[in-house]
Amino acid sequence: MPKSKSAYSEPSKVSKPEHHIIVVWVDNEAGVLARVIGLFSGRGYNIESLAVAEVDKQKHLSRITIVSVGTPEVIQQIKLQLGKQICVHKVALFKRSDENILFRELALIKINSSKKNQEKVKKACKKYNSVILDKSKNSFVIQVTALRREIDKLVQTIRPYGLISISRTGAVAMTRGPEVFK
Amino acid sequence: MPKSKSAYSEPSKVSKPEHHIIVVWVDNEAGVLARVIGLFSGRGYNIESLAVAEVDKQKHLSRITIVSVGTPEVIQQIKLQLGKQICVHKVALFKRSDENILFRELALIKINSSKKNQEKVKKACKKYNSVILDKSKNSFVIQVTALRREIDKLVQTIRPYGLISISRTGAVAMTRGPEVFK
Repeated sequence: MPKSKSAYSEPSKVSKPEHHIIVVWVDNEAGVLARVIGLFSGRGYNIESLAVAEVDKQKHLSRITIVSVGTPEVIQQIKLQLGKQICVHKVALFKRSDENILFRELALIKINSSKKNQEKVKKACKKYNSVILDKSKNSFVIQVTALRREIDKLVQTIRPYGLISISRTGAVAMTRGPEVFK
Repeated sequence: MPKSKSAYSEPSKVSKPEHHIIVVWVDNEAGVLARVIGLFSGRGYNIESLAVAEVDKQKHLSRITIVSVGTPEVIQQIKLQLGKQICVHKVALFKRSDENILFRELALIKINSSKKNQEKVKKACKKYNSVILDKSKNSFVIQVTALRREIDKLVQTIRPYGLISISRTGAVAMTRGPEVFK
């Protein structure tokens, strides 16, 4: 018997949900972001992180990087639907494990603690390209750039030392080498 | 005559649109981001940049930083409406000119050019805490962290030297000093 192409014919074959990074190039116009996000929320899919900013002033193009957890099949459906929107110029789907893709996230972290604990935090942040942006008597604000999972781990490590506020951008992605995604 | 409190009574008094930074702490759940963004797109307001990521795993809290252009009155309305949503824990409104607030943005930039132009780009990026993440024969990917307007200017400077791709997170914000926004 030839394989059925219906999506409903193999109900027992369900893939495991995993992290996906979706990059979308869109017109920088009111309502476009709402439409893109609607494709996720309409399926009950949570967006773990999202970063969007204009990347081409002349062409009014914005680049959105979305991290979401879902089955490869549904994420593929969302990708196809994104590609059909007229405000969308291109869509890329990246795997977190793909070594050809660079991922980075920025975090601003505020610490309020004793000098001794402050030193412990500075030491833990050191390897993540850290910069101290502000300093007061018992507090400081430190900036780190790293992978998402590295920042997750860092936050867990330094939370007991007086972490009182954190702001994170979510991941952005870029392919290695001279090629650009088309 | 006492001043009328109706919003319709002074049609000639229109404030100039300006940049506003809105920070929103929300439940990290499907659909919440769509609801927040809907308050902007529903008024035809464009979101210039947005960055969202989870900042507290235990409490399932995400922190959204939005940059939008609009009149102070309408932005204030949006802020009040955000505060009324049950998924919203707190809302802060920051001015770009407020020296008590730290702003930072991360950008990944891909350059494809001759060695000579590559050196020019590296020099221009140097003061923005730059890190080279990838290198091939004629290309490299560089990471910078700076203010939004600094990255805007940097991009303008290096675009002629072979900038072929850029990904930006949009701004995140943090108050200086030991206090946290409540």
